[in-house]
Amino acid sequence: MSLTPEQQAQIEAQRAGRRETRRVVAEGLEDRLYQAVPVLDHGFVRVVDYMGDDSAIVQAARVSYGQGTRHARDDAGLIRYLMRHWHSTPFEMCEIKFHVKLPVFVARQWIRHRTANVNEYSARYSILDREFYIPAPEDLAAQSTVSSQGRGAVLEGAEAQRVLETLKADSTQAYDHYQDMLGTDGQQGLARELARMNLPMNIYTQWYWKIDLHNLMHFLRLRADAHAQYEIRVYAEAICELVAAWVPATWQAFEDYRLNAAQFSGPALAVLRRMLAGEAVTQETSGLPKGEWREFEAMLKG
Amino acid sequence: MSLTPEQQAQIEAQRAGRRETRRVVAEGLEDRLYQAVPVLDHGFVRVVDYMGDDSAIVQAARVSYGQGTRHARDDAGLIRYLMRHWHSTPFEMCEIKFHVKLPVFVARQWIRHRTANVNEYSARYSILDREFYIPAPEDLAAQSTVSSQGRGAVLEGAEAQRVLETLKADSTQAYDHYQDMLGTDGQQGLARELARMNLPMNIYTQWYWKIDLHNLMHFLRLRADAHAQYEIRVYAEAICELVAAWVPATWQAFEDYRLNAAQFSGPALAVLRRMLAGEAVTQETSGLPKGEWREFEAMLKG
Amino acid sequence: MSLTPEQQAQIEAQRAGRRETRRVVAEGLEDRLYQAVPVLDHGFVRVVDYMGDDSAIVQAARVSYGQGTRHARDDAGLIRYLMRHWHSTPFEMCEIKFHVKLPVFVARQWIRHRTANVNEYSARYSILDREFYIPAPEDLAAQSTVSSQGRGAVLEGAEAQRVLETLKADSTQAYDHYQDMLGTDGQQGLARELARMNLPMNIYTQWYWKIDLHNLMHFLRLRADAHAQYEIRVYAEAICELVAAWVPATWQAFEDYRLNAAQFSGPALAVLRRMLAGEAVTQETSGLPKGEWREFEAMLKG
Amino acid sequence: MSLTPEQQAQIEAQRAGRRETRRVVAEGLEDRLYQAVPVLDHGFVRVVDYMGDDSAIVQAARVSYGQGTRHARDDAGLIRYLMRHWHSTPFEMCEIKFHVKLPVFVARQWIRHRTANVNEYSARYSILDREFYIPAPEDLAAQSTVSSQGRGAVLEGAEAQRVLETLKADSTQAYDHYQDMLGTDGQQGLARELARMNLPMNIYTQWYWKIDLHNLMHFLRLRADAHAQYEIRVYAEAICELVAAWVPATWQAFEDYRLNAAQFSGPALAVLRRMLAGEAVTQETSGLPKGEWREFEAMLKG
Repeated sequence: MSLTPEQQAQIEAQRAGRRETRRVVAEGLEDRLYQAVPVLDHGFVRVVDYMGDDSAIVQAARVSYGQGTRHARDDAGLIRYLMRHWHSTPFEMCEIKFHVKLPVFVARQWIRHRTANVNEYSARYSILDREFYIPAPEDLAAQSTVSSQGRGAVLEGAEAQRVLETLKADSTQAYDHYQDMLGTDGQQGLARELARMNLPMNIYTQWYWKIDLHNLMHFLRLRADAHAQYEIRVYAEAICELVAAWVPATWQAFEDYRLNAAQFSGPALAVLRRMLAGEAVTQETSGLPKGEWREFEAMLKG
Repeated sequence: MSLTPEQQAQIEAQRAGRRETRRVVAEGLEDRLYQAVPVLDHGFVRVVDYMGDDSAIVQAARVSYGQGTRHARDDAGLIRYLMRHWHSTPFEMCEIKFHVKLPVFVARQWIRHRTANVNEYSARYSILDREFYIPAPEDLAAQSTVSSQGRGAVLEGAEAQRVLETLKADSTQAYDHYQDMLGTDGQQGLARELARMNLPMNIYTQWYWKIDLHNLMHFLRLRADAHAQYEIRVYAEAICELVAAWVPATWQAFEDYRLNAAQFSGPALAVLRRMLAGEAVTQETSGLPKGEWREFEAMLKG
Repeated sequence: MSLTPEQQAQIEAQRAGRRETRRVVAEGLEDRLYQAVPVLDHGFVRVVDYMGDDSAIVQAARVSYGQGTRHARDDAGLIRYLMRHWHSTPFEMCEIKFHVKLPVFVARQWIRHRTANVNEYSARYSILDREFYIPAPEDLAAQSTVSSQGRGAVLEGAEAQRVLETLKADSTQAYDHYQDMLGTDGQQGLARELARMNLPMNIYTQWYWKIDLHNLMHFLRLRADAHAQYEIRVYAEAICELVAAWVPATWQAFEDYRLNAAQFSGPALAVLRRMLAGEAVTQETSGLPKGEWREFEAMLKG
Repeated sequence: MSLTPEQQAQIEAQRAGRRETRRVVAEGLEDRLYQAVPVLDHGFVRVVDYMGDDSAIVQAARVSYGQGTRHARDDAGLIRYLMRHWHSTPFEMCEIKFHVKLPVFVARQWIRHRTANVNEYSARYSILDREFYIPAPEDLAAQSTVSSQGRGAVLEGAEAQRVLETLKADSTQAYDHYQDMLGTDGQQGLARELARMNLPMNIYTQWYWKIDLHNLMHFLRLRADAHAQYEIRVYAEAICELVAAWVPATWQAFEDYRLNAAQFSGPALAVLRRMLAGEAVTQETSGLPKGEWREFEAMLKG
């Protein structure tokens, strides 16, 4: 992560400010507020504001005049009930706002989640910084040999070396040319909205991203998943920690009923029942296609 | 408005609580927090939480590391620019949550605004209170004689008397029967989810309603408008005052560029140009249909 | 269901029209187009338009220039893969539009699904018909004695009789008074937007409702579920049949991977693994709360 | 535009197919169906499906059992009324689906419109084609000297030459390296999801994009506007023509009440009234800031 001293000072100034409020305060998150959590080589995610906490979910579920229930334990019980039975609207009553710095190709995946508010740094209006994502050697994965959409082993030796050098050299050159096209003394200078198109998709952009807790959990479920691309998953994982600090009871329920849960299809359930009745079922006798049998076995092993 | 002593005490307890926060605080709204603003005979609207203030809009528009600009005046200038040029995303970065008590027929109009989060009191799970909207005599309007969708003069004399008595008597009877059907000693009691269907649409319901500032302004533009039904307009007007206290610079821009603005169609603009060139244009020579000419004249008179 | 002869003739006229199109045609649905499927005593649901079929999902998933794959069997395989791995965007590429007639209290539940387009019959502009939902005797359920939100046994004897008579009499009287308030000769007549509030929530309304296939399946999953209120479930079930006719491959996948699927929480999965390893687990030794144990056992029994 | 013979054949095959349907058919659009309209140097937009026509808007507005009104003229009148009074839901009842090929930096602007369904070609799963947007010489604009976000004069001479050569050379090299990193014989090959990040943002991507007519008009209003970046505006303009062919009455109303309309702020309206009363108002006496006065004068000139 590369914050300038000025940026660091602005963050510190915000953290130093304390004000009185009548609103609900999430103590666990206050401590993390504004701080940039480093992700990838130059990226970060930081919480810049939030609304509500665990009690706000209970309060909304009960449409109550006061705060939630009297005891945190009762709140947690209701939250678990709501999560288990797929009630979504009470979780929409909490909101969080992030400032995220991320490579453009990650931003392109991220933006597909439409139920959020976004304000991105404008490369029509401003000049982008010279910051590019270059994978760490251990993240330089080969194409998977079993899946069209996935990674295999880590690249090694000369090939790894060559790839890293290509990525670095091309980024540097693209940015040099970007600057050249923007013009120097005595030149007109290409419009910023055009010059940016020479930049590769590993350049960093940044945005403010605001989302309610229900939709954030949906995002995390998809993007903190093992099948998500590594470069977006690390952002999701950083956010997971912040959510756990913000709404601990909801986080616990989310882990139990979503992240660590597994869904069995109708046909898979039928197989499961046969197994519980003592039958030794194999893929052949299961009736499940091979891919589904593999996933079924994986769920049973954990 | 009819808050029970217990509800009033819960609200007071919330107002009394003060906590420290590192978040942005909107001083003008803190003072109003949790307080129920009376609307209609038994309804209210009250702010139960909010995120952001004017400076948060600027902060998002600039995707900045610190707070907005140094001077409130610069913030206001940027906000006016954003409003004038229809930038919506920075205004989405502020969020507000209301607790609203409102008649069901008003709730049915309100819910049509889909870009909000709602958690309504459940009449499947709970028993509704005996509270019905009965218009004040001065709000008992006759059907408009010029518009299929609007109100005319206030009803008078015996007819007004009869209507008020009908509304009151039918509400009372419907609620009595609702209670009867829910059952008494020795009866099974009809399911709450069925019994409620006997209740008329002037019964009060309540919900938590959360929305971002951009979509809230869109709601206010439609519902604080003279063409909106009176019974929803009074809620919109109560919210307008709360928004003005929350984000004063945005409110001023919203008034100038939206609430007090007027749109001229292409053909109307052509007429306007002829008038400015000195021509005395009439409806006949304008080429505008009568209805549009009336609206055109009204905009020029203000 | 009560269609007037004029309405029936309009439907027949639409059905009789045949036109040529270059668009994809879903043969199974063409046959059902415009026909009103009766639901409850006066309600219906009918398809008034649609876009796409199973092949359109495949086409979008592949971002292809031509139609889907060459063989329907390959299409079905890809559709099952997409459904199984929670790909949602290809299913959003099909769209369907319904005309629905339904009681207001059902409409109030229905409208909570926000990702749809709705145009409802306006009671500000028009006068509602005298049609009310009166449950069939076998649907007159008592309040559940185990759940705050649910139904128990069917009401019987004098109590059932009394409830039915109350519902009928109150509906009739409310509508009579609605008409009275709208005025007769020599009266001003209360504004329609006000008079309607005297009507109970079992009156029928109607709307055009348009939604994409992904969000429709989400709606069906929640509303065709055993926990949904009976009066909305019957609409969902009628729609299920129409969807099966429209996109048969998708429907099959939806049944296997959603409707007939079951989700096990992290803790429940741990219990399941112990059982498969041969341990005789009871609620006490499971560590699961009683409610979750009951649901767990139910899933294993099917 | 560069369609392969195979793609061209697939499009022709789709166009050749004719089927019978009971649905509403928009004759003006049938003729254009599937055809790729060229945009920029390699891009296109083509309609792959649609739902509804002008009559469907009327049908929904009336929640009718049959088709719209008897006369197309009455339909147009109602459509103009709906557009003029900002009724949005009837226009949401028409839907259209496009296949678009566009540079990534254009796609990044486009995707900001969230109320649409998108399925994009996956560069995790597939290998992108070697196609890059290189502006025509007359579109090679310099940065505006008056606006931070806009274009000025066209670049000329050596500078123009150098910019064009840079864009071409960098695209070629980036793609060569992309291929190299994907690997050749005897190499592992970098994962596709990683290799793509070396590609610049003028590379072409493609997607299926589906949207309702109301939200499409909102998109067109912003993107067919003179302030939109040229490279997205040309797509919006191509879509405008397709919409005019699809729903001609709506298009006419959209032109009159939106595209050719102008909005005057509250303060600007006050100035307008003074001018109509005969006063010679200048920027100084108007009280309007310079920027707003310029816009005001421009609206009056047309």
